[in-house]
Amino acid sequence: MVKADKKTDKKIKVGILGVRGYTGAETLKILLKHRKIESLKLFSTEEEGKVQDIIPSLRKYEIIEKVEKFSEEKVDGLDVVFLCTEQNKAHKIVAKLVELGIKTLVIDLSPDFRFKNKEEYKRIYGFEHAVPNLLDKTAYGLPELYREEVKEAEIIANPGCYPTASILALAPLLKYAKEKKIKVLDVIIDAKSGVTGAGRKALHHLTLGYLSENLKVYAWVEHRHVPEIKEKIQDLFGESPEILFSAQLIPAKRGILETIWVKLDQEPEDDLIRYYEDFTKENFFFDFWYEEFPDIYSTTGTNFIRVGMRKSKNYAILVSVIDNLIKGASGQAVQNMNIKFGFKENEGLELQPYFL
Amino acid sequence: MVKADKKTDKKIKVGILGVRGYTGAETLKILLKHRKIESLKLFSTEEEGKVQDIIPSLRKYEIIEKVEKFSEEKVDGLDVVFLCTEQNKAHKIVAKLVELGIKTLVIDLSPDFRFKNKEEYKRIYGFEHAVPNLLDKTAYGLPELYREEVKEAEIIANPGCYPTASILALAPLLKYAKEKKIKVLDVIIDAKSGVTGAGRKALHHLTLGYLSENLKVYAWVEHRHVPEIKEKIQDLFGESPEILFSAQLIPAKRGILETIWVKLDQEPEDDLIRYYEDFTKENFFFDFWYEEFPDIYSTTGTNFIRVGMRKSKNYAILVSVIDNLIKGASGQAVQNMNIKFGFKENEGLELQPYFL
Amino acid sequence: MVKADKKTDKKIKVGILGVRGYTGAETLKILLKHRKIESLKLFSTEEEGKVQDIIPSLRKYEIIEKVEKFSEEKVDGLDVVFLCTEQNKAHKIVAKLVELGIKTLVIDLSPDFRFKNKEEYKRIYGFEHAVPNLLDKTAYGLPELYREEVKEAEIIANPGCYPTASILALAPLLKYAKEKKIKVLDVIIDAKSGVTGAGRKALHHLTLGYLSENLKVYAWVEHRHVPEIKEKIQDLFGESPEILFSAQLIPAKRGILETIWVKLDQEPEDDLIRYYEDFTKENFFFDFWYEEFPDIYSTTGTNFIRVGMRKSKNYAILVSVIDNLIKGASGQAVQNMNIKFGFKENEGLELQPYFL
Amino acid sequence: MVKADKKTDKKIKVGILGVRGYTGAETLKILLKHRKIESLKLFSTEEEGKVQDIIPSLRKYEIIEKVEKFSEEKVDGLDVVFLCTEQNKAHKIVAKLVELGIKTLVIDLSPDFRFKNKEEYKRIYGFEHAVPNLLDKTAYGLPELYREEVKEAEIIANPGCYPTASILALAPLLKYAKEKKIKVLDVIIDAKSGVTGAGRKALHHLTLGYLSENLKVYAWVEHRHVPEIKEKIQDLFGESPEILFSAQLIPAKRGILETIWVKLDQEPEDDLIRYYEDFTKENFFFDFWYEEFPDIYSTTGTNFIRVGMRKSKNYAILVSVIDNLIKGASGQAVQNMNIKFGFKENEGLELQPYFL
Repeated sequence: MVKADKKTDKKIKVGILGVRGYTGAETLKILLKHRKIESLKLFSTEEEGKVQDIIPSLRKYEIIEKVEKFSEEKVDGLDVVFLCTEQNKAHKIVAKLVELGIKTLVIDLSPDFRFKNKEEYKRIYGFEHAVPNLLDKTAYGLPELYREEVKEAEIIANPGCYPTASILALAPLLKYAKEKKIKVLDVIIDAKSGVTGAGRKALHHLTLGYLSENLKVYAWVEHRHVPEIKEKIQDLFGESPEILFSAQLIPAKRGILETIWVKLDQEPEDDLIRYYEDFTKENFFFDFWYEEFPDIYSTTGTNFIRVGMRKSKNYAILVSVIDNLIKGASGQAVQNMNIKFGFKENEGLELQPYFL
Repeated sequence: MVKADKKTDKKIKVGILGVRGYTGAETLKILLKHRKIESLKLFSTEEEGKVQDIIPSLRKYEIIEKVEKFSEEKVDGLDVVFLCTEQNKAHKIVAKLVELGIKTLVIDLSPDFRFKNKEEYKRIYGFEHAVPNLLDKTAYGLPELYREEVKEAEIIANPGCYPTASILALAPLLKYAKEKKIKVLDVIIDAKSGVTGAGRKALHHLTLGYLSENLKVYAWVEHRHVPEIKEKIQDLFGESPEILFSAQLIPAKRGILETIWVKLDQEPEDDLIRYYEDFTKENFFFDFWYEEFPDIYSTTGTNFIRVGMRKSKNYAILVSVIDNLIKGASGQAVQNMNIKFGFKENEGLELQPYFL
Repeated sequence: MVKADKKTDKKIKVGILGVRGYTGAETLKILLKHRKIESLKLFSTEEEGKVQDIIPSLRKYEIIEKVEKFSEEKVDGLDVVFLCTEQNKAHKIVAKLVELGIKTLVIDLSPDFRFKNKEEYKRIYGFEHAVPNLLDKTAYGLPELYREEVKEAEIIANPGCYPTASILALAPLLKYAKEKKIKVLDVIIDAKSGVTGAGRKALHHLTLGYLSENLKVYAWVEHRHVPEIKEKIQDLFGESPEILFSAQLIPAKRGILETIWVKLDQEPEDDLIRYYEDFTKENFFFDFWYEEFPDIYSTTGTNFIRVGMRKSKNYAILVSVIDNLIKGASGQAVQNMNIKFGFKENEGLELQPYFL
Repeated sequence: MVKADKKTDKKIKVGILGVRGYTGAETLKILLKHRKIESLKLFSTEEEGKVQDIIPSLRKYEIIEKVEKFSEEKVDGLDVVFLCTEQNKAHKIVAKLVELGIKTLVIDLSPDFRFKNKEEYKRIYGFEHAVPNLLDKTAYGLPELYREEVKEAEIIANPGCYPTASILALAPLLKYAKEKKIKVLDVIIDAKSGVTGAGRKALHHLTLGYLSENLKVYAWVEHRHVPEIKEKIQDLFGESPEILFSAQLIPAKRGILETIWVKLDQEPEDDLIRYYEDFTKENFFFDFWYEEFPDIYSTTGTNFIRVGMRKSKNYAILVSVIDNLIKGASGQAVQNMNIKFGFKENEGLELQPYFL
């Protein structure tokens, strides 16, 4: 199922900025097992020292690299750098790299390169993009749908966790609708997410004292991931249906489950199933369950997205599940790296589920 | 806001069957503080003895009543009996009470009397109803919408927890739509529930080993609560829109949060808000939050239903929150009792939220 | 079991400072149901406005009082004020009250008045006590052991949650040992606590992202509650055995369970049980389970302390359980108020367990 | 640190019985990544079919083996079989293997071979051992202390999770005490465990409805793991101190944290630290933290045991942490297999922590 595009013995030099955040740490974990890494540089904007001092659960692991204070100059000579930073940092770092003439591939796990339309950054995140001319050379790193673009890109914008779970679950259905000339009337995405999606911040609504035995709607139709989903669907399928969205924080650490309600202008035919089965065959990390519904456990710790589907009159109802830190962030980032450098797509990503 | 229909000094004799289940125990807790109870009889089909031996957290409480083995004869002389049993038991008990000529008011917390249409019991629960002739004398105990029927009823069918959260949240909107001749096109109810809704059973998918850090879709469009919701909406508003439903188990003990997506044939006007505000004024236990969204904590331990609302194009989006064991079960049962016997509607129900 | 020391129709005027913290909010909840309160003033050092805006889960409750910005002058005229503040604030407030000649009874839920020995404040909390001369007029508000002192006090120092669970569980055993001239060799207290004991702060180690599926030792032999326990045991029994202590944060909101290992210089006799039974009879809120072990649920939401005991050779092993926010804080504070003003000791404290 | 005893290219044939239980599934997960496995046979006493149908989170993994109905004959030809069964099954299976003349190495994850003294099985587990003559050829599979015995054994009895966490944490201290002729007076083990230690059973006290926001003492001094600990300490150090034990279920899925209080007849010297440091150097999976205390996260998902220590007068206080399903079960079982077959001790066990 998974094939290397070209057989390669090449090994690469890799850097990670932001090794103490959740996505930086997961990226590190994955790369420690990756067989194509020649060297690994770890950067932080805050902490320096042995990685085992910063992440005590890595004690006794044979990681010799120190965490270094980041500066753009240190990226020189690396083949790829993962930017695991908060919004409004990566685009400035890239501007500096350009200025310094450093050619290292950037895989950005923040939102700073996700939109093609540079106006969106101002509108949604409130900043003026520092290198808008690079947006054309940026691939949206959702490999199942942008594999070729990823291969050509100079910058890879790793998608948000909600867009990953949404766009991949919808793609076979939207393709089916387009080919069959069926109109998609409405899409409602009701997302439930563990708290690590909000990062390693100490905020009251992320405390166990607030969340244990609780449930909270925390994001809404205007969530910044909605325009991201719409821009990509438009790009892929020519137009996007109206998308309604809500996100609820559940009392759990990680995992996203989205219930997606799609209304068509007619009953979906059985043929729709074939589109999902084909997408499953073409994409190692996509798994279609048909009438069963996957739970979060079925993906926790892995790079899989698992999707169940049911039909009810004019509706197709999807349940899409990912580990927000892996397929929704670090795993997908490494998957992008594998594609870009011609490694096996699941190199380093043969991760096993935590909970059987 | 809350008024007694007639001032009364009357006290009543009450029985509870099924005191060890979650809803029986909550009913007991509420009635222990109720100022209109003359005597309380506790029944079980399984256990007998001091209630403190059966429910150790009640040790040192001054409850003198023993839990007795249930038989229909023992209901004689009581003013009201709460049946906190599993499905397909209460209707047989009522048949026996009729046979014995016992006139005690029955408040049934099981589904056995929720439908007017007797065919539904066979179709949905798989049993032949033992006293179909009594369905006409049964009130659907959702007081905010059936207060007058409750006053006249011989049997009160306490609604399911999902229907309570759904129908009450929708009622002002459906009234608005009807009066304004706006068509309701679709209703999607995405429910998230703590595990006590499934009762005190030891099932694998209710273990902490399965549910911690997990989320599971466990019920679907064909959930037995959907026909209950539709029958009542039809009864109240003449017709029911199509209702799509999913229920997810969250890793928490109690509480329901429903996100409800309602599509109209036009944008809802601001006037809609007034319908919710009026419903709030008329009903002590209904609380409209408008653009804020209540979390589960805002109701845990109380008999309130709290509802937030947002508009987005032709959609009104509702967030409805209840404590499934109180407004979704035992609290509502006592509210029905209060109405029936002319007590203050919130007598015994001035419960405080567990979590501030 | 519970008797009013003197029958009284008196009602009192009460203030609470710190109504947004966990202990302030619980105190408010309890006092809202208390039948001897004439008026309630709510203070905050930060927020002002309707209490329902500050604590949304109180919406629709008929609380007319506004939360006011605190100043010492506003205490004038109150019969009692509950100080639910962080350490190193209450003693300064009291100094100001003295300066202003305000005679209101202070019940301090912070540690600022817990030690008789004024040096301890400097040594343990790092501050110079502002009114050391008042320490003699301060009662340690553990009513089961200091009921008479509470009646006479001008200030009541509400005990810490761990000392409450520890000292009360140990008291009958220490009395037994003293009377039988048995030597207590060692006491090891292994405490497990929900996170609300740490207050409503947003700290990383209190986030669900850190604590879900985790367990953490967070305090040790040198915990500031150990000298509090020792000073009181010394005061009550003439001397204190060596006390070893650890505290673990569990992934739960509230509740403390302490496993206490007591080594004696001989096997405890059966007569020891009688000491626990007597203490249970004399104290409404103390409940001895003998060979069973209470779980946290048996006290959650209530003012009870429940204690189990087993003997193993020279050891008596205790399991002591409380709700840290009630018997460990606000409930005990109200219990102290009841005693001081001659109300029934459990007035307002007939709270029911949350979980049956 | 980790060295292969003899370099080997040999690959082995392996079977697992009980692949649906927690320990069987974890063993499978580990062996799927093990580079010395030639073939893997999966057995169940109940279910047959594709492993992906039995464990849906393994869908899309390339596991070709089917789960077969177990019979002793099918063990023939395997190099090793892991018995992941409940108590009182493995010893009967071994009796049958002996009868059939099958020489396959047995690694038993149940308690059926843990005691040398055959009387203990009757006394503690209530069964007559079927092959008591094999107890002499059985190694207690705690490799850090019985590495040589494991190499020679015909049967390997994998230790219980509590004994693993206890004996390993105590070993350097007991060695120190023995060499320095210091007397160990008492050992108190206060264990806190996630629910998977109790297996994949649906019991009321393992439901989330019971355990969320709760804590429960569930095992005591007479717990069957105590004689296991004592027998091994006696075997290793000539005599065992008195051991007191309690086990508490925490609202979490996996992980054990033990707080261990050891009283000596004198203050421990600084030299004690060296014993722990040496043990850390000699044993890859043992990690000494000295004055810090490890949390459960520091081991979740890994085969490490991490131990912190503090001194207080005559006490040494230890905090010992493991993942109960890995170092406490399946990881240790594979570690034993590695030793027995001359593989690198951490082959297949370079597992990364789940939570960084």
